[in-house]
Amino acid sequence: MRYFKSDNTAAVSAEIIQAITEANVGNALAYGADRWSDSLDAVYGKFFGTKVRVFAVSSGTAANALALATLCPPWGTVLTHNEAHIERDECGAPEFFTGGAKLSLVSGQGAKIAAADLAARLEWFDPHVHSVQPRMLSITQATERGALYTPQEVAALSKIAHDRGMAVHMDGARFANALVAQDVTPAELTWKAGVDVLSFGVIKNGGMNAEAVVFFDPARVADFEFRRKRAGQLFCKGRYAAVQLLAYLESGIWRRNAEWANRLASRIAAAAPALLSEPFATNQVFMQLGDARIAELSKEFAFYAWGPAGSGEARFVCSWDTPEEDVDALCAALGRIAS
Amino acid sequence: MRYFKSDNTAAVSAEIIQAITEANVGNALAYGADRWSDSLDAVYGKFFGTKVRVFAVSSGTAANALALATLCPPWGTVLTHNEAHIERDECGAPEFFTGGAKLSLVSGQGAKIAAADLAARLEWFDPHVHSVQPRMLSITQATERGALYTPQEVAALSKIAHDRGMAVHMDGARFANALVAQDVTPAELTWKAGVDVLSFGVIKNGGMNAEAVVFFDPARVADFEFRRKRAGQLFCKGRYAAVQLLAYLESGIWRRNAEWANRLASRIAAAAPALLSEPFATNQVFMQLGDARIAELSKEFAFYAWGPAGSGEARFVCSWDTPEEDVDALCAALGRIAS
Amino acid sequence: MRYFKSDNTAAVSAEIIQAITEANVGNALAYGADRWSDSLDAVYGKFFGTKVRVFAVSSGTAANALALATLCPPWGTVLTHNEAHIERDECGAPEFFTGGAKLSLVSGQGAKIAAADLAARLEWFDPHVHSVQPRMLSITQATERGALYTPQEVAALSKIAHDRGMAVHMDGARFANALVAQDVTPAELTWKAGVDVLSFGVIKNGGMNAEAVVFFDPARVADFEFRRKRAGQLFCKGRYAAVQLLAYLESGIWRRNAEWANRLASRIAAAAPALLSEPFATNQVFMQLGDARIAELSKEFAFYAWGPAGSGEARFVCSWDTPEEDVDALCAALGRIAS
Amino acid sequence: MRYFKSDNTAAVSAEIIQAITEANVGNALAYGADRWSDSLDAVYGKFFGTKVRVFAVSSGTAANALALATLCPPWGTVLTHNEAHIERDECGAPEFFTGGAKLSLVSGQGAKIAAADLAARLEWFDPHVHSVQPRMLSITQATERGALYTPQEVAALSKIAHDRGMAVHMDGARFANALVAQDVTPAELTWKAGVDVLSFGVIKNGGMNAEAVVFFDPARVADFEFRRKRAGQLFCKGRYAAVQLLAYLESGIWRRNAEWANRLASRIAAAAPALLSEPFATNQVFMQLGDARIAELSKEFAFYAWGPAGSGEARFVCSWDTPEEDVDALCAALGRIAS
Repeated sequence: MRYFKSDNTAAVSAEIIQAITEANVGNALAYGADRWSDSLDAVYGKFFGTKVRVFAVSSGTAANALALATLCPPWGTVLTHNEAHIERDECGAPEFFTGGAKLSLVSGQGAKIAAADLAARLEWFDPHVHSVQPRMLSITQATERGALYTPQEVAALSKIAHDRGMAVHMDGARFANALVAQDVTPAELTWKAGVDVLSFGVIKNGGMNAEAVVFFDPARVADFEFRRKRAGQLFCKGRYAAVQLLAYLESGIWRRNAEWANRLASRIAAAAPALLSEPFATNQVFMQLGDARIAELSKEFAFYAWGPAGSGEARFVCSWDTPEEDVDALCAALGRIAS
Repeated sequence: MRYFKSDNTAAVSAEIIQAITEANVGNALAYGADRWSDSLDAVYGKFFGTKVRVFAVSSGTAANALALATLCPPWGTVLTHNEAHIERDECGAPEFFTGGAKLSLVSGQGAKIAAADLAARLEWFDPHVHSVQPRMLSITQATERGALYTPQEVAALSKIAHDRGMAVHMDGARFANALVAQDVTPAELTWKAGVDVLSFGVIKNGGMNAEAVVFFDPARVADFEFRRKRAGQLFCKGRYAAVQLLAYLESGIWRRNAEWANRLASRIAAAAPALLSEPFATNQVFMQLGDARIAELSKEFAFYAWGPAGSGEARFVCSWDTPEEDVDALCAALGRIAS
Repeated sequence: MRYFKSDNTAAVSAEIIQAITEANVGNALAYGADRWSDSLDAVYGKFFGTKVRVFAVSSGTAANALALATLCPPWGTVLTHNEAHIERDECGAPEFFTGGAKLSLVSGQGAKIAAADLAARLEWFDPHVHSVQPRMLSITQATERGALYTPQEVAALSKIAHDRGMAVHMDGARFANALVAQDVTPAELTWKAGVDVLSFGVIKNGGMNAEAVVFFDPARVADFEFRRKRAGQLFCKGRYAAVQLLAYLESGIWRRNAEWANRLASRIAAAAPALLSEPFATNQVFMQLGDARIAELSKEFAFYAWGPAGSGEARFVCSWDTPEEDVDALCAALGRIAS
Repeated sequence: MRYFKSDNTAAVSAEIIQAITEANVGNALAYGADRWSDSLDAVYGKFFGTKVRVFAVSSGTAANALALATLCPPWGTVLTHNEAHIERDECGAPEFFTGGAKLSLVSGQGAKIAAADLAARLEWFDPHVHSVQPRMLSITQATERGALYTPQEVAALSKIAHDRGMAVHMDGARFANALVAQDVTPAELTWKAGVDVLSFGVIKNGGMNAEAVVFFDPARVADFEFRRKRAGQLFCKGRYAAVQLLAYLESGIWRRNAEWANRLASRIAAAAPALLSEPFATNQVFMQLGDARIAELSKEFAFYAWGPAGSGEARFVCSWDTPEEDVDALCAALGRIAS
């Protein structure tokens, strides 16, 4: 069976394994007081070209939920897309970590929020005590349907949010894929465009079990560290998480892995462009195949039928370790279908 | 200024004041161990024609949130209308009381949920751990836009919910208005149609500061009493809440007050039927007036412009103590506008 | 049966009933936008001789829990006595409202916290993320065993708390009893001694169902109002709570009722001074009677055996409406026992 | 510097690294649907000699808090020792995960709870709604002061708990150390003695970043999996956690590592038996040295001064990779001190 289910079925990059192995020598103070954890801020600060605070957690869900809980009070609400991972796939983690804040949903093509739609949704909230108060915007980059926000689009959304006193969170589970797909810098796609906190995904793109939460304004870290500890997300042997985050940037796999995945996905998209149900942009390909063709392809390929039952849509995801020959096979099969 | 803002600007019915005064003699055991509190189950059981458990709380928000928290786990979600009071006007109380459960929204004309729309919305939820699990349906009777659910409509929604293992909550802030507007019994509109727990509104319809939470299946009360205490909603001088709930039914004001409010509202609706933006049904009247006419009417009448700024819609609510002459004046003004 | 169980079995003072009745005329804007609610800050500010913010809630538990939640983060802890009402009698309301903050307990005679014991308990907490952080001190005035804190004692505790960055909460369920028992002003017993927020009890001392939360620093009210709404403690017919708080001060019953209760209790204490298990101070009398004498007295008098089963201690509480003749009878019975 | 600070400063056993490396081949379904995760129940069931359900999480704090949240409702309380890790070192994680349940503390020598003290503490709780309800007992094996519960002691405590309707949790952060220190089976120390759920520590004893939560009654797993996901503790690349848990048992390092640590610690204890402030039992050694000798030893050895400032007590912990020569050096130094 050839795997296109998700980039989280991938293995771990050799560079990450090597970094773990190299760090596995002797004693190191626990709970992040080790030299690897100590260097996170500097290494990520250099990557982003600004002063940052960086924290390791064990999952993207934890990264998102802790970021939101730090900046959104229990009586607040997080504006987000109705297909956002935080809404659809985290079993209510944001609500749990924030102490019961709400997610208020905006729809939009490609799981993207348009500035006008955000502004319109915000009209519904009154500043009185009867209403939860909009305190955050959360956007996903790349989105859950593989689309990209340009720096200009991020900036436009951030301006609306900031003008309303809201903080901006970016769920970057596939941030590297988004970055290499656009000719922009990490800075341009984040803090220069108004992002206050980023869930910087490492796991899907070659990591093992550590994600980075990056605050671009150290003053807003606030009680993050208490919340992380209290959530069981402060690791006693902290070096093994820190080295993953370090190796991810320093070895360059963030770029190499994302480029590989995006390139292979572009081949799939190109194999049957008429079937695309979303414009191709990163490492996810969405196609309208119909249930019969989905069933047929499923004999050889592992992938998800997307959306509600019977929608006929399929999602193919490439990862850093997707074999070229698997893509060859899929392209051939899609070519047969499309013809 | 003549008031049509809401039925919660009304005073308290004389029967309620009298019941409080009569109970204000001598000692009574605290925290609901008094003879008035003891008789609640029997009096409400008789009203509904079945065995019930009834609890007093101090607000509709508390009634709704405690009912939901009792039957929906933190990792659950409550299906409800996107204009529901629990979504729009309780500052996240359901999320707070449930420990972070979610509200999942359904739209529909008149703030009503259609059975087909409920079924379609439920399609989005998978039974796996990534998704919150649908565990409750909450409908409002009469709705936030004055509409009614017939017993048949309630039963159809309840069937969908029960088939999915969900409990059914009815927000009956204006339950009496809904009841007298239809020729049905309290039983037919609730437990016979599948309602598991009812927030039975007393305050808007003549009460002072006590609402009733009515469980139709005593086995499902579960930990309600611990949750109520823990929420600061168990009153030490419990008799003063209990007598309000008792007098509301026993004096007949539930019916008399609701009939008065509905009748006056029907006069308003009849004064300018072409302007109605919702079909008239209970004690709320929605009209599309335009901002200019709203501004003009606001000189003499207190009422709410409804919806987002600039929508041009107005809401007029009649209460148990709305003076007939205020309605005369409003009808005359609307007549002038409509002509 | 003559009642000495608690001051919460008492009826409501006529002045409170009268104020409710007088306010029960015509329309008033809902949710605290009425003229009675509007005047609370001024009336309580005058009483305390400083600028305050005052909010009505429906129970002492709600008052305490909302006050704590406003000033203590979820990762904080509230230092309090191990017999405090917030620890023993609120079913975890502080933990619920704060989002899971902790109570850290200090013991001490008479349910009082000694300054040295507070300081010693604080030694246990480290400033690192592994430990919850001490953020509040909560003391009860008069205490759960009827004892008093002098202004000097309150000030000494407050200094320790403030030096550590903690806020000071006073649970004043029987604040009036504490005030009239000492020749001090409301200011001296609260903000001048460092209290930041007071749960000012009204219900036990003649009220019906409204307590006051008094913030002495308006800047620290923070998100109280959102939290109150979200807790179902913002009343739609707000005038009926506000007039209770106003009448309580303006009619002078706060003093008259407390003096009555304290005086009657002093007679009980004087009837058998050798049996006192706590020094007498306010309206509660604790006596070591032994189980046999408790059983005998229970035939004529309703009161609580205190503490764990078999402790042999009894508590007698006088309220504003305890009849003098009931005290005559109890004193006579105690006289027989003591002789 | 020679390290005796804690067993969490240790590196990861080669067997764990090897297992991770071997599993790092090809695709595996995400979120625990891999073959390694699938085999956890069987492997742990064999170890414990009964049917179990096992779940991986990323920290001991997460293991404890999720176990407690699954079996203790928000209005419940967990009886535990006042020096327990869940009380002192998890920044309120149990309160967070349970939705605001309480910890109720029992004291006792060696951080152990005596059956009589548990029974006495339970006397304080009434079954009424004013009190949180005792729903769990949590004991630590080995304790935070290195002591052991025998199977008979566990059984006695469990009986008290079960008779009261409480579940029993064992915090086994150092369970392997406790097991090898007694001539008993895993079964005898857990489910046969009444333990319902065990936090089975792997990290301190050679693991990297995975702990096991072991339920001995599959029927009580209840909503654990939803809670784990919602807490960000369900790992997308689940195999890397699962293989750690598998290798820990299957390679035998659970025993070998614990025996090593315990043996070295026994040498430290034997070097200055007169200075022991706790009877020696596992891999932790507590000594009363006085501040001056603590300062002197700190020049060569890294260890914790224990308890409040000035207590003069020191804790030395041996881990699976503590070098024998470091113990030689410490023993020599202690010998000089003691003589």
